Amino acid sequence: MRGAVIYGPKDVRLQERPDPTIEQPTDAIVRTVAACVCGSDLWRYRGVQRVARPTPIGHEYVGVVEAVGTDVTSVKPGQFVVGGFLTSDNTCAVCRAGMQSHCLHGTGYDGCQAEFIRIPNADGTLLATPEHPGDDLVPSLLALSDVMCTGWHAAVCAEVKPGATVVVVGDGAVGLSGVLAARQLGAERVIAMSRHADRQQLAVEFGATDIVAERGDEGIERVKDLTGGIGADAVLECVGTDDSVVQALRSARPGAMIGWVGVPHVTDLPQQHMFWRNVGLRGGPAPVRAYLPDLMQRVLDGRIEPGKVFDLTLPLSQVAEAYAAMDERRAIKSLLQP
Amino acid sequence: MRGAVIYGPKDVRLQERPDPTIEQPTDAIVRTVAACVCGSDLWRYRGVQRVARPTPIGHEYVGVVEAVGTDVTSVKPGQFVVGGFLTSDNTCAVCRAGMQSHCLHGTGYDGCQAEFIRIPNADGTLLATPEHPGDDLVPSLLALSDVMCTGWHAAVCAEVKPGATVVVVGDGAVGLSGVLAARQLGAERVIAMSRHADRQQLAVEFGATDIVAERGDEGIERVKDLTGGIGADAVLECVGTDDSVVQALRSARPGAMIGWVGVPHVTDLPQQHMFWRNVGLRGGPAPVRAYLPDLMQRVLDGRIEPGKVFDLTLPLSQVAEAYAAMDERRAIKSLLQP
Repeated sequence: MRGAVIYGPKDVRLQERPDPTIEQPTDAIVRTVAACVCGSDLWRYRGVQRVARPTPIGHEYVGVVEAVGTDVTSVKPGQFVVGGFLTSDNTCAVCRAGMQSHCLHGTGYDGCQAEFIRIPNADGTLLATPEHPGDDLVPSLLALSDVMCTGWHAAVCAEVKPGATVVVVGDGAVGLSGVLAARQLGAERVIAMSRHADRQQLAVEFGATDIVAERGDEGIERVKDLTGGIGADAVLECVGTDDSVVQALRSARPGAMIGWVGVPHVTDLPQQHMFWRNVGLRGGPAPVRAYLPDLMQRVLDGRIEPGKVFDLTLPLSQVAEAYAAMDERRAIKSLLQP
Repeated sequence: MRGAVIYGPKDVRLQERPDPTIEQPTDAIVRTVAACVCGSDLWRYRGVQRVARPTPIGHEYVGVVEAVGTDVTSVKPGQFVVGGFLTSDNTCAVCRAGMQSHCLHGTGYDGCQAEFIRIPNADGTLLATPEHPGDDLVPSLLALSDVMCTGWHAAVCAEVKPGATVVVVGDGAVGLSGVLAARQLGAERVIAMSRHADRQQLAVEFGATDIVAERGDEGIERVKDLTGGIGADAVLECVGTDDSVVQALRSARPGAMIGWVGVPHVTDLPQQHMFWRNVGLRGGPAPVRAYLPDLMQRVLDGRIEPGKVFDLTLPLSQVAEAYAAMDERRAIKSLLQP
């Protein structure tokens, strides 16, 4: 089969790779219908994170089950499935506590930007749609594999409640998904911090009520103006840099929660903005499997259309361009079709 | 009147001070029935925090209202009252959000280890008991002024739920109050980390089900042994040092919350134990006024006896000894009677 392999900075190649096979009785093999490029893939693409050796890449997918191991009972060949960016058995003590992204027996994947994918822990990872979805639903189902669940996790960690005022720091695909999540969870006011016209527009489509383009002290001032001078009830931090974390913490009212899901590249957590203001911080890799049933239903019902974050669709053969377009901010998020 | 003044490390003196008077129409004057020494007072007593000039000290009290300003409506002279360690108007936007410790018009006190205390924001700060309590209830009501509400805040921030397994780091008066709070909030298992026999005993009286005397890696191992290998659902951090914060974070299972209320003297928040394990951190100065009605009722009903943390009672004239006993760990917490 063909699959994407990252060799180093700015160097992702589609190449022949061995077809995956059932290795454990709990495995499934999925024929990829769509995959995509994650903001976190760009850390290696940009050289921020080292690539020690050529490595199959990608962790988001939807597809059709080709084969299952003898122990797999919840999905069968021919079904259309969504799986999260990490596998989970969904039965261990950590999974039962709702933290499937830290499953005691969880794994990653051997590259999902590929024609076929081996799915360890198939029963605890995959969720099948009731029937094969139309092509129009594929992007939104694909978004559940990571980006939408990650935005949702930010909103859950930030304890967004009905009527709340929410600030979203970051206008990438995760931040935009966070806007959508906050509104679905009942936020009355969602302030999206964004400097890019196309992203501002999508934020508004997803339910943002206010846009703040300013950053730093000026951005904080604008947020304070919009929140009666005290700051937001909940803040979603969807970037992961020192500046964005400080922006998030300072946008919060005393007693607020920050949901942080931007993979942190932070030198120091500024505790002075936390303890003495009773501002909390919670987040990490989203437990996709915990959110998947609810969010899949919302997609199938047409209540949410998270697939709108994909503004570039390319054949898998153009995977290098899919990365370049995101790296150069020509695309918010690239969808790949094998 | 006589009141305690801190001059510098190991130097607290009882001296003549001017009687406080009504300065604002929202003030009350309280005749102190009991006051006490806080663990946070020891930061200055030990020289960790500088004392720039002789400063009246103390922020915990119960007493009887002597006089009220013309705008005060909720308490009247003669009533027995409890107030929190910070004043609050209980009406501003931040107070309405339940964070009275960050009231937009909040203040501290001009020393509560004194015979009389001026209470700014009297209506939003003081809560009167239905009738004058018996002497036996005074310590427990006094504990509501700070230490019990602070332990409660730790448990609330850590999201202790019925059936939860909870670790409490710190066996000072706050940590012990945290044990009591966790049990009141329904924790099934409360693991108190304590190395002192007298404190271990009080922890058990307050509902601790397990005691872990070990610290560091060994302490973590013991906690893991007691929690099915995964760590606790909720952790109360009641010390505020680098070691105790790391101990708390590492005792938590993936997805757990840390409630931190130990005034932090931390050089760096170890984010590696947070994001990649989905462990959250929330806390700060407790919003006493938010918790006071509920906790006062629990005291009056005899459901909790947080006053047990006072193991030394002295006349106010011996305030210096009250500090020394706590500093030298001869006492958990000292109660002062004017």
